[in-house]
Amino acid sequence: MEHNCEAVREANVSFYRAFEMLDIKRMEDIWSKGDYIKCIHPGWPVCAGWVEVRDSWVLIFNHTRAIKFSIDLLDIRILGDWAYVVCMESISTQEQEAWVDGKVLATNLFEWRGGQWQVFHHHGSPLVTNEAPAA
Amino acid sequence: MEHNCEAVREANVSFYRAFEMLDIKRMEDIWSKGDYIKCIHPGWPVCAGWVEVRDSWVLIFNHTRAIKFSIDLLDIRILGDWAYVVCMESISTQEQEAWVDGKVLATNLFEWRGGQWQVFHHHGSPLVTNEAPAA
Repeated sequence: MEHNCEAVREANVSFYRAFEMLDIKRMEDIWSKGDYIKCIHPGWPVCAGWVEVRDSWVLIFNHTRAIKFSIDLLDIRILGDWAYVVCMESISTQEQEAWVDGKVLATNLFEWRGGQWQVFHHHGSPLVTNEAPAA
Repeated sequence: MEHNCEAVREANVSFYRAFEMLDIKRMEDIWSKGDYIKCIHPGWPVCAGWVEVRDSWVLIFNHTRAIKFSIDLLDIRILGDWAYVVCMESISTQEQEAWVDGKVLATNLFEWRGGQWQVFHHHGSPLVTNEAPAA
């Protein structure tokens, strides 16, 4: 089957929409359940396999009041039933009454399973910037 | 062509050996030169394309007195002419007269070009640990 980048872009959007909505069911829908799946949250050790990956999202969702993403796509490539996305996440998180901004670089890898693109690897890491935090 | 994980593991070893040797020629040999190649050093913005990636290694090598790696492989997967490596880098760098330890998680992606596995994507990010730095 010939794949196109638009479907991969949409899968990437779905991943961040699930994160913004703090919705574990939506996050579950977008992830592969292969035993090789991995998730590296900024600064965390590797979470491997769906049980660990799911627990990490539940923990994050439970400790997040509100979060918004703006995604700059830096690359999308498709190789057979694999897809590769590199993007910069501009993130605003609500802390107490203020919104705090940050930037994270992400490598997101997808595989084609059951008629959809599913995440099998997410690696996010903080981008160190000199910008002052937003008020 | 059927690939095997051992050749990918060896390519990953070559990447870290080039880094330890602070040898830009060896680093050049192990990288793909595709215009899509990307390198994310811990905390840095994305370097894209061989000119930027090469410059980043030259900068790092020029500012590194000595560095040693111990690599824990967490996963290797091959999909066609792509390979995926996740590993933890235990790093010792020589600062003044002391060695400083740190840990970095890396996603390394390889592609099969010209009869060898070449890096086309390196994403390294600091693992936050509670261990005291080595003396």
